[in-house]
Amino acid sequence: MALREISPQHCWELLESHSIGRIAWKAADGLQLLPVTYAVHQGSIVFRTSPYGVLSELVRPSDVIFEVDQLDMAARTGWSVVVRGRAESIAEPNEVAQLLRLGGPVPWAAGTRTLFIQVTPRATSGRMVGIP
Amino acid sequence: MALREISPQHCWELLESHSIGRIAWKAADGLQLLPVTYAVHQGSIVFRTSPYGVLSELVRPSDVIFEVDQLDMAARTGWSVVVRGRAESIAEPNEVAQLLRLGGPVPWAAGTRTLFIQVTPRATSGRMVGIP
Repeated sequence: MALREISPQHCWELLESHSIGRIAWKAADGLQLLPVTYAVHQGSIVFRTSPYGVLSELVRPSDVIFEVDQLDMAARTGWSVVVRGRAESIAEPNEVAQLLRLGGPVPWAAGTRTLFIQVTPRATSGRMVGIP
Repeated sequence: MALREISPQHCWELLESHSIGRIAWKAADGLQLLPVTYAVHQGSIVFRTSPYGVLSELVRPSDVIFEVDQLDMAARTGWSVVVRGRAESIAEPNEVAQLLRLGGPVPWAAGTRTLFIQVTPRATSGRMVGIP
């Protein structure tokens, strides 16, 4: 089973049909890697966090890598899509209001999760193994 | 549901009971983030790759972050364990032979996957949401 590339359009279809991903970035004290609940909103990856959480670092524009995958150990099939881009907070009140109206991505942990972070994609790529 | 810390011992129990994780590092051309099939071997995270794949970059000692999680969207419960450490290839023939005998971590993609990469942990931490 060789690795095969996934087209950018199919990458976004996969991103839109899922809601859990992982995000990594270079923080002040080293690499960070966390799972997040996300949504695709106007061609960007959007998620919510608390102003006090680790993810709130991304309020300041930061280079990030965001990944979504689906892997089946038994069948040995799977795919992985990666979005490289720039994360920053959504500061525009109208856009925040719109996201809140839409329901936005739902955070898991309790507390005030009023911060919306947006990852504007610079490059999207994906690969699959063993899926016809 | 607040976030709660997972003890280091419990982190390693979780790592040992799973086999798919994600690894991120700062590559020459930016951040990388990939899913890998891994095993815990003598207190380290070990995985196999091809000398031609992206992961083979980790032959040269590199700071990495490795993450394993289990998230249940419906129940809104989950945990995430993160290992920060140094990746490098396992060059010692006896150790490679031992890993091959044990079966080692099984790679998915086809091809020569003769390279073993080991992540020696420097710090391990974990957190859970909504699990009693």
